[in-house]
Amino acid sequence: MNFCSQCGAPVVISIPPGDTLPRHICERCGAIHYRNPKLVVGCIPQWQEKILLCRRAIEPRHGLWTLPAGFMENGETAEQAAIRETMEEACAEVELDDLFSLISLPRISQVHLFYLGRMNAPVYAVGSESLEVELFAEEQIPWDTLAFSSVEVSLRAYFKDRRSGMLGQRPPVSFAF
Amino acid sequence: MNFCSQCGAPVVISIPPGDTLPRHICERCGAIHYRNPKLVVGCIPQWQEKILLCRRAIEPRHGLWTLPAGFMENGETAEQAAIRETMEEACAEVELDDLFSLISLPRISQVHLFYLGRMNAPVYAVGSESLEVELFAEEQIPWDTLAFSSVEVSLRAYFKDRRSGMLGQRPPVSFAF
Repeated sequence: MNFCSQCGAPVVISIPPGDTLPRHICERCGAIHYRNPKLVVGCIPQWQEKILLCRRAIEPRHGLWTLPAGFMENGETAEQAAIRETMEEACAEVELDDLFSLISLPRISQVHLFYLGRMNAPVYAVGSESLEVELFAEEQIPWDTLAFSSVEVSLRAYFKDRRSGMLGQRPPVSFAF
Repeated sequence: MNFCSQCGAPVVISIPPGDTLPRHICERCGAIHYRNPKLVVGCIPQWQEKILLCRRAIEPRHGLWTLPAGFMENGETAEQAAIRETMEEACAEVELDDLFSLISLPRISQVHLFYLGRMNAPVYAVGSESLEVELFAEEQIPWDTLAFSSVEVSLRAYFKDRRSGMLGQRPPVSFAF
């Protein structure tokens, strides 16, 4: 950030009165521009014993496999974001159950949320941000070519909970990278 | 947003190629300025049978009672944000257990997270953003003067789970306003 988005004047970085952290502040209009972590929201779409993964057609991690997820938009709920992203990336309709995982990524100032999702039919297709979309049984998961550590943590916990009968029975997986 | 924070030129609102929503776009440098929901993170600080509330010394909702919480900062985890906010607003040290509630507020583009927090001693004080900080038993909760609906939903679910022995035993309360 170099310029004030309100008035267009240059900004400086300093700690506002009463604050503890440096912020971008406009020297002309006084606006303080806060920058906050972004939410990435998605789901684990389940069809029978399989889950749906997307191979990314976009950067970062082009060509690698991920759960459908993306940046939450203003004006929607977290659940709406997860449903929307699953439709956009995998052309799949899901109903959501509980939040399954919450992963903080402080180095990139993101928080990733994954819900448990239920598909009512094996209906899916390649969305505009995907190269491939496919259902995987546990033993077929492409562990070596997953796009994000938050996806790997969530999937490993998911299969562990499924084997132990604890799926959806406990607080969400909490992790930080 | 009126001006590009990168180059200072005026922005226009239009849908970028490949996108589905209008964004603020710089006509000079082409920067697309996304706006995303903000995370407000806090906890339910517990000491024996009581929980710690703060009476707000700042707007919005000056003078009303709230759980310690505030905007998550870049570079921290959600848990660190909850611990930091509890120290800033109530001068209380907490250890966190699981995420207890996730409340979406799409009309103001916020997501509120509340963790279960444990105080190891009844040590607290009035932080700079608080007028009063006090421990409350369930029957003392100032239901009529709570600051935020997300706080009320979280507290009602908390006491319900505590009575039924389900506290920390299930997925987080999920709600939208």
